[in-house]
Amino acid sequence: MVRIPDAEYSSRLERLVSFMNKKGLDAIYLNSNASFSYFVGYHYIATERPVAMLVRKNGDVYFFGPIMEKEHIRTQTKFVKDVFCYFDYPGEVHPMKRFAEWMKQLNLSKIGTESMVFYSSPWGYRGIDLRELLPNTTFELVKEDIYNMRIIKSEIEIQMIKESVKWGEVAHRHLQRLIKPGKYDWEVSAQASLIASKEMKRALGPDFKQTSSTLPAHAGMRGQVGEHSAYPHSLSIERPITKGDIVGTGASADVYGYHSELERNLFLGIPGEKAEKYHSIALEMQDAAIEAIKPGKKCSDVDKASRRIAKERGVENLLLHHTGHGMGLEGHEAPFLDIGDDTVLQPGMVMSVEPGLYLPSLGGFRHSDTIVVKEDGIEVLNRYPRDIDDLTIT
Amino acid sequence: MVRIPDAEYSSRLERLVSFMNKKGLDAIYLNSNASFSYFVGYHYIATERPVAMLVRKNGDVYFFGPIMEKEHIRTQTKFVKDVFCYFDYPGEVHPMKRFAEWMKQLNLSKIGTESMVFYSSPWGYRGIDLRELLPNTTFELVKEDIYNMRIIKSEIEIQMIKESVKWGEVAHRHLQRLIKPGKYDWEVSAQASLIASKEMKRALGPDFKQTSSTLPAHAGMRGQVGEHSAYPHSLSIERPITKGDIVGTGASADVYGYHSELERNLFLGIPGEKAEKYHSIALEMQDAAIEAIKPGKKCSDVDKASRRIAKERGVENLLLHHTGHGMGLEGHEAPFLDIGDDTVLQPGMVMSVEPGLYLPSLGGFRHSDTIVVKEDGIEVLNRYPRDIDDLTIT
Repeated sequence: MVRIPDAEYSSRLERLVSFMNKKGLDAIYLNSNASFSYFVGYHYIATERPVAMLVRKNGDVYFFGPIMEKEHIRTQTKFVKDVFCYFDYPGEVHPMKRFAEWMKQLNLSKIGTESMVFYSSPWGYRGIDLRELLPNTTFELVKEDIYNMRIIKSEIEIQMIKESVKWGEVAHRHLQRLIKPGKYDWEVSAQASLIASKEMKRALGPDFKQTSSTLPAHAGMRGQVGEHSAYPHSLSIERPITKGDIVGTGASADVYGYHSELERNLFLGIPGEKAEKYHSIALEMQDAAIEAIKPGKKCSDVDKASRRIAKERGVENLLLHHTGHGMGLEGHEAPFLDIGDDTVLQPGMVMSVEPGLYLPSLGGFRHSDTIVVKEDGIEVLNRYPRDIDDLTIT
Repeated sequence: MVRIPDAEYSSRLERLVSFMNKKGLDAIYLNSNASFSYFVGYHYIATERPVAMLVRKNGDVYFFGPIMEKEHIRTQTKFVKDVFCYFDYPGEVHPMKRFAEWMKQLNLSKIGTESMVFYSSPWGYRGIDLRELLPNTTFELVKEDIYNMRIIKSEIEIQMIKESVKWGEVAHRHLQRLIKPGKYDWEVSAQASLIASKEMKRALGPDFKQTSSTLPAHAGMRGQVGEHSAYPHSLSIERPITKGDIVGTGASADVYGYHSELERNLFLGIPGEKAEKYHSIALEMQDAAIEAIKPGKKCSDVDKASRRIAKERGVENLLLHHTGHGMGLEGHEAPFLDIGDDTVLQPGMVMSVEPGLYLPSLGGFRHSDTIVVKEDGIEVLNRYPRDIDDLTIT
């Protein structure tokens, strides 16, 4: 059965506790969505309503947030000891003042925090600095320490990511099967994602549910169609898919919050010589990057290996981004396979390997696969074909 | 034809320019997605790669960001004079150092900024404070002033929101038609959203495209099914829809970045007496709130009017949130129809009116409609039925 066992959350909280003891902290104030998900398995819709979690050095977890989450949080996690709720934001008393009162009740003098902003939201939230409200409390920024706890993935996390890879591939197969000239990219994406999501739900059973409001399995193009496939972060295109287009794809699945990445370029009709050339250079670059990934090597070495091919083939001017990024609970995570990131690769890091070439008006050439760094090298999790024949739709 | 004319962006930028002149600023540093969309019509995928826009007091707009956006931004806006790009993040030189160089080139001494953080992202971005890099430049926080420019909607904006209401209703009608016991909520949501999106695209024509990678029209339930409809911000539920369920819905459409809100509770089978009672109290609360909305009245008055009904009917303990929120380019915007928000209502404010009652195990009762404050009172933009008979699926 695919699920995250309680022992996994307990061990994550234990790591947090031992960190607090080492640092002499009474508690840690968490306020990133990734931390809520990582330490207790809680997911919610972030709005103007401030939310935080406080983990004490004895391991007890407290939730601070709007009353609308009071019962909702109980459906997701048993790792929260008590919930402290305000009615709504802004309210007659600013929620941060309540947070300060609750923290006083818990009698804490030295608190590690993920952010000295304490809560931020683009949706009209106006904050008060907790340090002003709690002058006798010391806050220490421990953002990096908390973030770094998530960089090396556990066996369980790798299992979730493998499951995500599996359903991303299923969705991508449907996508490739359904793409036809005359259809809109978002139309095919919705159809493929829905079919794959039903298959995923059927396979994972009655207890499985996604952690967001979108479909659990997903494959799409987000406008990377024809000339727009030359924009790596295209959002949409007004026209339908047309014969002769190169399309850029992406597929993933939400497995208890964990993601993966599979990206390909597909050809609507036999590609010309030029397209064939760039397709194969992009493959060569990906191969060089995969070859370069080994524990003890630096992230920057991997980017350099891939860039070296681009240079040799005279296409360095067609690069628009580095070679890859970490991933897990978030779409992108540090470290980055980037010339400027000298982080040393370690077993358990999960990353995308996705060098790309982009030709204005012709299109984009990028194959992204999810990999895990292993003691003895690398495991490429995706098995989806990369060959030009397998990616041509006629 | 539905579109935002160039003159609308010009007039927004002019307001920014006159604000700068009044404040004696040489430029404004924008770094919120809503501002990019509002002032120049630019949408992108926010990642660890820092992005900003600089608007000079002569009205010239400069883009600072990763090279992958260099050409992409040109497909969306003609209001950017020049683009300054770095290759990627983190890069051999931190992008903020480039930002600082570019700002020096532009020869600016006093800059208003939306945020003293300059860029933040949960996706592994680590920042450098621009103030450290530019010790001779004065930065002044003007977040509130910039935010407040968006609160009163123009005629064009209201037209976009009305168009959004229209397609949200179309999507909701398909949703209501497609809901059946045995189906998963996400399944029906995807089907209804796809059908409505195709109709929307057909109607809005070959030039229309959405501003994000999702379907332009959307209706869904995000897990607000049966007992889970008692959680206003439910995300998902593991089981399919079942006869007897109350389901909470939501519908909207993306019209050049503008949103609207339509929410109803639907009954799978004739509702019992208890459900009927709470449904009608929620309607009464919504009526009272709508009645209370007039220019010159305070947002808090509206929340009080709706709460008064809840109190009189003895159901105040079933409230889990305030009466509504502003909206436009973001899902929620200030001001809030909240007991603690004394903002005075003014013509051109667009808000949701959505008081709700939530009974554990029975479900949620909430009708949300989008309204505009007018010189002479209020215009309710939604025409979707609210009566129990119209919302019962047998």
